[in-house]
Parts: sequence; C-alpha cells; structure tokens
Amino acid sequence: MKKQRIAILGAGPSGLAQLRAFEAAAQTGAELPEIVCYEKQSDLGGMWNYTWRTGLDAHGEPVHGSMYRYLWSNGPKECLEFADYSFEEHFGKPIASYPPRAVLRDYIMGRVEKSDLRHCIRFNTAVQWVSYDEATEKFSVTVRDVKADALSTEEFDYVVVATGHFSTPNTPYFEGLEHFPGRVLHAHDFRDACEFAGKDLLLVGSSYSAEDIGTQCHKYGASSVTFSYRSAPMGYAWPEAFQEVPLLTRLDDRTAHFADGSQREVDAIILCTGYQHHFPFLPDDLTLRTRNRLYPENLYKGVFWIANPKLIYLGMQDQYYTFNMFDAQAWYARDVILGRIALPDAQAMAADAAAWVQREEAARTPCQHIDFQAAYIRDLVGPTDYPEFDIEGMGQLFKEWKRDKQADILGYRNKSYRSTLTGTVAPPHHTPWMEAIDDSLDAFLADGPAQPSAAPDKATAPGLSQHRPLHQPLNVALHKAPHKPAHQQRKAA
Amino acid sequence: MKKQRIAILGAGPSGLAQLRAFEAAAQTGAELPEIVCYEKQSDLGGMWNYTWRTGLDAHGEPVHGSMYRYLWSNGPKECLEFADYSFEEHFGKPIASYPPRAVLRDYIMGRVEKSDLRHCIRFNTAVQWVSYDEATEKFSVTVRDVKADALSTEEFDYVVVATGHFSTPNTPYFEGLEHFPGRVLHAHDFRDACEFAGKDLLLVGSSYSAEDIGTQCHKYGASSVTFSYRSAPMGYAWPEAFQEVPLLTRLDDRTAHFADGSQREVDAIILCTGYQHHFPFLPDDLTLRTRNRLYPENLYKGVFWIANPKLIYLGMQDQYYTFNMFDAQAWYARDVILGRIALPDAQAMAADAAAWVQREEAARTPCQHIDFQAAYIRDLVGPTDYPEFDIEGMGQLFKEWKRDKQADILGYRNKSYRSTLTGTVAPPHHTPWMEAIDDSLDAFLADGPAQPSAAPDKATAPGLSQHRPLHQPLNVALHKAPHKPAHQQRKAA
Repeated sequence: MKKQRIAILGAGPSGLAQLRAFEAAAQTGAELPEIVCYEKQSDLGGMWNYTWRTGLDAHGEPVHGSMYRYLWSNGPKECLEFADYSFEEHFGKPIASYPPRAVLRDYIMGRVEKSDLRHCIRFNTAVQWVSYDEATEKFSVTVRDVKADALSTEEFDYVVVATGHFSTPNTPYFEGLEHFPGRVLHAHDFRDACEFAGKDLLLVGSSYSAEDIGTQCHKYGASSVTFSYRSAPMGYAWPEAFQEVPLLTRLDDRTAHFADGSQREVDAIILCTGYQHHFPFLPDDLTLRTRNRLYPENLYKGVFWIANPKLIYLGMQDQYYTFNMFDAQAWYARDVILGRIALPDAQAMAADAAAWVQREEAARTPCQHIDFQAAYIRDLVGPTDYPEFDIEGMGQLFKEWKRDKQADILGYRNKSYRSTLTGTVAPPHHTPWMEAIDDSLDAFLADGPAQPSAAPDKATAPGLSQHRPLHQPLNVALHKAPHKPAHQQRKAA
Repeated sequence: MKKQRIAILGAGPSGLAQLRAFEAAAQTGAELPEIVCYEKQSDLGGMWNYTWRTGLDAHGEPVHGSMYRYLWSNGPKECLEFADYSFEEHFGKPIASYPPRAVLRDYIMGRVEKSDLRHCIRFNTAVQWVSYDEATEKFSVTVRDVKADALSTEEFDYVVVATGHFSTPNTPYFEGLEHFPGRVLHAHDFRDACEFAGKDLLLVGSSYSAEDIGTQCHKYGASSVTFSYRSAPMGYAWPEAFQEVPLLTRLDDRTAHFADGSQREVDAIILCTGYQHHFPFLPDDLTLRTRNRLYPENLYKGVFWIANPKLIYLGMQDQYYTFNMFDAQAWYARDVILGRIALPDAQAMAADAAAWVQREEAARTPCQHIDFQAAYIRDLVGPTDYPEFDIEGMGQLFKEWKRDKQADILGYRNKSYRSTLTGTVAPPHHTPWMEAIDDSLDAFLADGPAQPSAAPDKATAPGLSQHRPLHQPLNVALHKAPHKPAHQQRKAA
C-alpha cells in the first residue's frame, strides 16, 4: 500500500509540534507517513522569528510576524513548557520566569533542531491554494516557491493547517484616521518602541497587545500612553503616564475624541484591535470561520474539521496554554492519522464539539476559562502517549500570574514560579524588568546585568536630537552584542 | 452566438480606460461583449484612492495604495490629459499645471462617473485565481467577495490585467536593519510627512519616490534628508538640508554607513527601492515577469501576452506617458476583442515585440526614452478611433519638465505649460508649491490662498510638543475644510 502523505502548512510552534509528534512515534518504532511541511519564511519558528519588515515581505507575501523588539514573555515560562523538554534541559540551568523573545525562540527551536524532521520542511514556500477531490479523497496543495516564483502542486491524504491566527490584523476604521497627521498602525506592524520615545500615544484596545505595547513604549520613553477600551478598562493600577478612556469616537486632526466626551492630543495611534482567522488558501467549505475563542465551532477535539476530518487545524484557539496545548493537539492528530485513534462519525463529533462549546460559553471568569482550557487539554492528552504533565498545576500558575499582574502591571515579570516538570523554582532575573533594556539572549542568560562601563553614555554626544530618551544610548550599546543561540553556546562549551 | 465575456481585473486608471474604450464604441453603435470588472477596493480610482491603511486592508488583502498625503503631481498635467476629455472640460476652467492627488483623482473619476459602465464593476472583490482551459479556450476567474468572505468562479473569453505595478514593494535587506531603533518602511507604506518632522531621514533610492518623498518631508519639517544611491546621484542643486551619498552598506544601531566610508546618524529609514510586477493570481505560464522598463518582453503591442493573446496586460510599462497611454492601449485591445483588428500569428507578434525591445535598449537618454514612448503610443493610436492628440507635442513638454526640474527641484511645480488639447497655457497656482501646505481639491481650486486668519496659530498652545514644526498647525487648520468633488460642486452651481 502506498504511504499516506501529510501536508503541514507552517513551521511555527504548531507545525513543529506536529513534526515532533511524528518523530516521537518514529522513535518508538512507528512507520511514518510521508510528511511535507511548507513554510513561507526562510527558517522555522513562525511568529517567533523577529522581522524588521512590515506589510509585504521580500517576495510580496504578507509578513507573518507580529513580534516586536524588546518583547518579553507576558506569561510565566513555567506555563508553556513542553512536557517532553524542559527549559532546564534546554538551557542547562534554571532561568528566570519571564524570558525575552529570543530566549523562547531558542527553546522552541532547540527541541526540533536535533530532529531529523527538519528535512521535511520546504522553506520559502507559500501555500497558494488547497482543494479536495471527493472522488480521489485527496487534497491538492498548490504552493509557490517564492524565490523562484514558481508554482507546483502535490497531492496529500491529510492537510494540517498550522498557519496561526495572529498574522492578519483586524483593523477597524475610526472617523478622521485619514486626516491624522502622524503614524497610524496596527499592533501587527509595531516593531520598535524607540520610534515612539517622547510621543503621546493612543492605543486602541484593552487586551494583551495594548497592555504589552503600552507598557513597553512607556519603558522605552513614550511621554504618555492612553488606552481606549470598547467594553471595559483593563483596570490595572497604572502609573501617572497612563490613562484608560472609553472608545475612540473620532479624530479631529491630532485630537482624539472619546465616548465619554473627553479628548486628548496624540502623536501616534496604535490599533491593538486583534487579529482575524484568515485562510485565503482554502475553499469556502474547508474554511474555519471563528472569532478568537477557547473552543472554535466545527472542530472536533478542537482540531478536526468535522465536515472533512482529514483537514486538521492546530492552535486556532484563544490561548492561555500554548506550546504544550499545540503538542497535545498534534499528538492526538498524529494518532488519528496513524490509525491509533478512530474518529467517531460526523454526528457524534458534532455533538461532542457542541457540548464543549456550550461548556466554554458557561465559563465566565478568567479562572473558569483557565480551568476550561486545562480540561480540554486533559481530554486530548488522555488517549495518546504524550508525556503526562501537571496541566492543572499549570492552571494554578496561570491564576497566580493573573493575580501578580493585577497587583503590579509593571513589575509582575519580576516574579518567579515553580516548574511543574522539574520542581525548580525559577531564579529571580538579574535585572528588574523595567530596567532590563537589553532583550538579547546573551544578556538574559548572563550571570548579572551588563557593566555600565561597557555602555558609554552617548546621550550628551553631539548629533543626537533632544527628544531622544536618556536610556536609549545604553540600549543601543547593549544591542551591539551578537546574538548567539544558547544551544550553540552549550555545544561550544 | 453567445456574447463574448471580458474580465477586467482592476478599476484604476488602466481598467477605467478599458471600460471607457468599450463605452466609446457603444456610443458609435457597436454591440458590446459582456464585461465584468473586478475591483478589490470599495471605489474606483485604483492607486489614486488615498488610504491611511498600510500592509493589509480590513479584509486581510494587501493594501493597493502607495499614495501619501500632500502628494502633488510630479509631472505637468498637460502630459497626462485624456485625448477625449480635457482638464478644462472637467473643471470648467483652466487650472495650474501641477495639481495635488485629489484633483487628479477627481479628473480621472469624472470621465467615468458619467458612464453607464460603472454597473460592470464588482467592488470589494479580489481576484484570487485565473486559469485557462486549452480545450474550451476559456479563462476561469475565481474571486473573493471580501465582505462576505465568499469565493466564486466565472468563465471569460478575455482577461484584461489592469492591476498596476506600483503596489508590491521591492524591499531589499541591508545589514543591521533588524537592530535599527526607529521606523523602517518602504515608500509603499509612507503616508504622512508630519510623522517625520524634526527627524533626520535616510532615503534609500534615487528615483521618483525618493525625490518626491524626500522633498515632501523637507517641506513638512524634516531636519535633514539623506539620499543613498546605488549607481548615480540624482544630481539636483539640493538645498543644505539634503545630501546625496553612495549606497548604504550597513547600519550600526542609528548610524548608517555608506559605500564611500562616510556615515550618518539617522532617525528613520525609507526604502524607496521600487516595486515588483506581482501577479499572485496567475499561473506561471501566464505571468508577466519583467523589471520596470519601457517595453516589457513577451507582450505584443506592449499589451497582448504573446503565448496567449486573449490575456491582455495594460499599463505594465515604465511610464512617462500615463493616462493617455493606458487609453491608447485600451482602445487597441478593445478593437482586437471586437474583431476590428486582427492579431498576426505568434511568430510575427514575437518579431514585432523583439524589434521594439531592441529599439528601447538602443535608447540611452531621458529624451530618447520619451521619444521611444511617444513612438510606441503613436503606433497604437494609428489603427483605432482614439481621438488624435499631439503625442509628440506632449513629448516636448516632458523634455521641458525635465529641464525645469533640473533647474529647480523645489520650484519646478510653479511652472506652467500649454495644453496640447485646448491650447491654453495653465495659469500659475495661487501659492508657490513649497508654501502650499494644504493639498485639498478645494484649496487648489480656490481663487487664492486661504486667509491666515482662518488658521489660528496653535504652535504656542499648551499640549503641543516642542518638536512639532511651526507650520504644521496651519496645515492642520486648513485640512478641516471638507473635501467636495469638483464635479459635484459644478453640478450644484
């Protein structure tokens, strides 16, 4: 019998989880299907690859990345540990609970770098179109080699959509935006807070992007940050430079007007208004259409497209749990593909999914949402050989994190948590987050803060304009240190 | 016999020219084929619709527009007059030679607003995929209704690609861009010069975008503008705030290093590095692949895809002539579709195109390039009933414009030229370009500059940060005047 062929669309955290799941099966003797993973970018890591580009990339494809410089994890790393690969194993020592992007990327990549499955990945290859033939029961996947600008098509038995849902911005219009004399951008295009030093910023939105970009801009020298919320303020005990106001109603030149009649002059506007689930490469009858929620409809076990369960979506949920949830999904999907788990009929799948959706809708508070997602993962992990891990214990960490944030929105990243895998309590970071200007892997893993002597104060040097914040030259100097992946360092050591 | 069906992709200047060509034929009694024009945007005008959006639009589609606020024509309007519709006819009076964007848009739209063919246009409809069936000799065009997020497919005998080639940025990488602590953007995403007031700018490129964005940023308060060229400087007599340096070699934090060893601290980087011909909706064998040149290869008469001449490309040339060249192409294409002109066989088409390509390559100077494009248009216009116009006379105007720019890069827009259609010499504009801060249609068409009394000086008002340039509040106040299309004003009068 001819080997089954599996297409994985995307080599970010979800796609890599799927590759790793297959690899784990191979290591215990399973015969693998033929796997092809298509990745638009030139490296694995998906969203975790920082890019300076915005809008369209070098080949005219939409830029996938929404990450920005100086981004630090906004949740404890203890909540996103892979059950089969701890942070301690990767870095060879305990590290602090809130690492910057480069450190998390290094961890994600580290598990797969060692893997043989890298050769399955076709980089610089964007998925153009997927169709399904009822007669042959095969998918046709048409892709573009973006470097050669050449199309090609292959057939597959399963398609795993692992393209994420934080890449296509949801960008509403507000009256007067077209006459605003300053930069207007969506959070997706935010890259470097230094650009906004000395500015009065308006951030529309009250979720993670607004909170994180706002606090970061404050950290890197913005004059003020105004958050505009639709339904409710975030309600943190913000320092004086911040304020929360109701929804933006219109702009009159530089003046932003809000629903409570208040107004404010602003220099730049960042629309932190969320993302769309967007699958332009799928025909209508295979397209997941959902808002960002914990249990999208029409997906059995949150992954199988009920109308055609050979189409599998990974990581399309709103997320407390991330990497280990993708793992749980990928292991389950793998076992269905390998015939280890049989799917029930469509009616049963729909009933099961509907029950979960109902359960999600009954959950009201953040704690209930965390418990819901823990239960969902528990349900997935049970039938597979994904290593047992303390899902509920991680849920407690999420609740602790919520409380820590509420207590100190600018200081919660200085907290430490106990790994449910290793039992180790994370060491405190050598530098409080508000003073940790350098976000590089080297600086984070160093034993202590960089010596100020290494960073000559250029603030008073001629040629620097006056609105540049004082701490920027320090940042500048520190950033000169070359980034070297941790696992390479360890290999060299 | 069943009516032929024609798909026009795009309702910008080229697509509108094609619609207008068919309408002109209908007015002289021709029976028209069935025409469907697909337009991604919600209105006609293509590139000439300003949008505040950058990157992806409200529906996740790449933003088409590359235009920015305060953009004024960089060539005399007398060179881009439609042969069948003069500026004087549209505006009811002579106007100055260098109008701002809104005025040109009004003119382009004015010719088609009156037309019945608007009902052919399906707005909010993005072309997803085009294929050709050799057996049926039909094209299948699959489009996405972006509002409903629904796909549909229809068959056509001809496809006219009128999607432009100034929408997909060509964005090279330079070492250190990923660590530059300020905004990095392609000219495609440039929107408002006020954002860069008080900044030291680096513009990479030495063609129209660099020249125009650089001078505009200077006009709106940038501290300095550094142009970095690859092969040769523009060589204008730049004022002190400008400089031209060789190619950027790398960035070290804020410091840009250039090929001559010089360096400069900059606050923002605008990559004016051109655009790609990009047709992600076409299969490889129908895709035009070309650099921006006066005679792209593989196109007979510059429009018919020689391998399958039922595929027609409009406006894919590098452009001196614009609107009237698109007209000449559209009239010729129309006559082929209507059977009024017979195409020669493929070999003859290839030989003809090759001869033009050779002729283009023999042309070396701007004057020779202008003459080449005039000859190309003359060749197209001959066999059709497009109104005779003084193509060569316009060529002389282009040469005059070149000289005027060379003499005064910041002042050439104050010059006036004689319309080859009406014989009228354009009146001088009421305000020198460097002082014309308001780019609205109303301000341009007014009898004189706006009264300063209408623009209270807010520069000293509290709440304005100090690095805001003094002339900005004036701009601000003037921009409050509502934009009302000229032809509506005339109807109301």
